[in-house]
Amino acid sequence: MNLQTAIDRVSLEEAVALAAALDGKTDILEMGTSLVKDYGNLAIEKIREVLTTSTLLVDSKTIDEGAYEFQQAYRFGADIVTAMGAASYDTLAACYAVSQAQDKTMMIDLLEVNEEKMHQIADFEQAIYALHHSVDRKDKQDTVASVAEFHQKFPQIKRLAIAGGIDLTQAQALAKQGLIEIVIVGSKITKAAEPIQAATQFMEGIQS
Amino acid sequence: MNLQTAIDRVSLEEAVALAAALDGKTDILEMGTSLVKDYGNLAIEKIREVLTTSTLLVDSKTIDEGAYEFQQAYRFGADIVTAMGAASYDTLAACYAVSQAQDKTMMIDLLEVNEEKMHQIADFEQAIYALHHSVDRKDKQDTVASVAEFHQKFPQIKRLAIAGGIDLTQAQALAKQGLIEIVIVGSKITKAAEPIQAATQFMEGIQS
Repeated sequence: MNLQTAIDRVSLEEAVALAAALDGKTDILEMGTSLVKDYGNLAIEKIREVLTTSTLLVDSKTIDEGAYEFQQAYRFGADIVTAMGAASYDTLAACYAVSQAQDKTMMIDLLEVNEEKMHQIADFEQAIYALHHSVDRKDKQDTVASVAEFHQKFPQIKRLAIAGGIDLTQAQALAKQGLIEIVIVGSKITKAAEPIQAATQFMEGIQS
Repeated sequence: MNLQTAIDRVSLEEAVALAAALDGKTDILEMGTSLVKDYGNLAIEKIREVLTTSTLLVDSKTIDEGAYEFQQAYRFGADIVTAMGAASYDTLAACYAVSQAQDKTMMIDLLEVNEEKMHQIADFEQAIYALHHSVDRKDKQDTVASVAEFHQKFPQIKRLAIAGGIDLTQAQALAKQGLIEIVIVGSKITKAAEPIQAATQFMEGIQS
């Protein structure tokens, strides 16, 4: 399993410093949506510059104008870009076509995607599907059980990620379960007293 | 009926120049999602600076972290900010709470929102609900018929907007129909040979 560490809601200077410090300490460095919307492509460029080892994911959360947004994000340095599963099939197909043509990776964020919609968008073979529990939602979920249930319903989907308040215990349980390719962690690492140490704990904790 | 003119997929310099030229020639100036994602809050600030008459809408397309994204957009100068109807109810409630507290306006983009979901999110009384046909979708729609059908199903929703390839003939028909508060026009104005003249034609065409 791979660790993706999400940087969000900080200044660009702090984001770049944190990205530089986390480079190589996390498999994937996520530039969160707040940085996309606060700073635009400049933030992708600046973070790209300080990464030598970690892969860069840009959490664009594209929901329309798929080709344009994906082309821009890749052009400025992203390796992986996210689109919303809630987008139309045609938008997702446009994002996927750009990703495949550039030998890059699309991640599909399944926030608020119900089972019916999921069936309609399950055929992007190389895409990573990210189970996602909104930070704004008041109800909580059991991550391991959610993953098992999803896998049972959609066994054809080979690449899975999960996001939403994941802690070290949950990450370890997910690693043991063996169905998830990427566990996405945000504040549990970046808002820790010692972010590098926290990332290292997660990286060690998810090795099986 | 009010005209909202959307600026998208141009450089920040071109966007600012176009916004300055369109100020007062369109009721609402929309800073499109491409400008949000390409330039971030800087674009809101720069466009705000050149507007003296038109209202500024920022097409943030917020789908998570509602309070943060809305606070940021208002802080940098937006009068109206968009959230996706596809977001969770809790995210929309967070966006609405920020908007109401600051005496600003939320627009809910109904892209890919089905009837079942629409019933769940129909209670934001002061919000503007925007019917939206994705530019990525291959199928076309009859706008006047779509609006009539929506109004019949959701008569309690008082504030309606519509977006997606609207031309002058459609805009005039919508004005005559009298159900829409805001018609949103993009390339039919901004990519016209004479954008100001095109905006003026729309503004005159929708007066009833």
